[in-house]
Amino acid sequence: MSDNQSQIRSLIENWVKAVHTGDLATVLADHAENIVMFDVPPPYQGIRGIKNYRQAWPPFFEYQASGAAFEIESLEITAGEDVAFAYALLRCGTPEEFKQNPDNRLRLTLGLQKQNGRWVVVHEHHSFPYVAE
Amino acid sequence: MSDNQSQIRSLIENWVKAVHTGDLATVLADHAENIVMFDVPPPYQGIRGIKNYRQAWPPFFEYQASGAAFEIESLEITAGEDVAFAYALLRCGTPEEFKQNPDNRLRLTLGLQKQNGRWVVVHEHHSFPYVAE
Repeated sequence: MSDNQSQIRSLIENWVKAVHTGDLATVLADHAENIVMFDVPPPYQGIRGIKNYRQAWPPFFEYQASGAAFEIESLEITAGEDVAFAYALLRCGTPEEFKQNPDNRLRLTLGLQKQNGRWVVVHEHHSFPYVAE
Repeated sequence: MSDNQSQIRSLIENWVKAVHTGDLATVLADHAENIVMFDVPPPYQGIRGIKNYRQAWPPFFEYQASGAAFEIESLEITAGEDVAFAYALLRCGTPEEFKQNPDNRLRLTLGLQKQNGRWVVVHEHHSFPYVAE
């Protein structure tokens, strides 16, 4: 594994742990000022800028603290010298939610750039598959 | 705009037109054998490999032919020398669907690699925001 790949893997693993434990400082740490996040819910134009990204997390931390999982099942990283992307499947849900749909997975795609010698996330896309009722 | 960015912009614009007109050969043309697509609907593990990617399109072409839009509203590309990602918002829906929810947008994130001197898509993530009923 290249140095770039292993740095990005550590970044993502640390971020996932911080999301689960509600550690906001670590969730934000490796993110660009101008991050654009396509979150699971609206806004339809995405969450733009680190201040808005920061505000998105506290309700999700409450959900996690209620007994939900947030665990990487698979993670693929493609890294050049200064641009990279990664995609992952995560187990994200409460025991009750997994009882109803054990196969459901959060799909996560990240876009990263090396800025001043360190990798930062500039784009995140989170979604669950859409199942027609 | 760098050469890499303008090549990727052309690739994506051509792909979007081909999706709308149902031109399967062009939809597939700049895609890697081992593409992983997180599509709007399941499968939960994603659509893996170009054969499965190819099979995903005909039902969507029928939907497009019924009068749906598939138009780029905004597109941001971040390109290194051999790895790139892009994210976009698209108007995707029928006039009836836009009457019900005019702000809804398809969110699209692409991961690309330069292979043998040309850019190919190795990852696609498509989703609509989830709105609780």
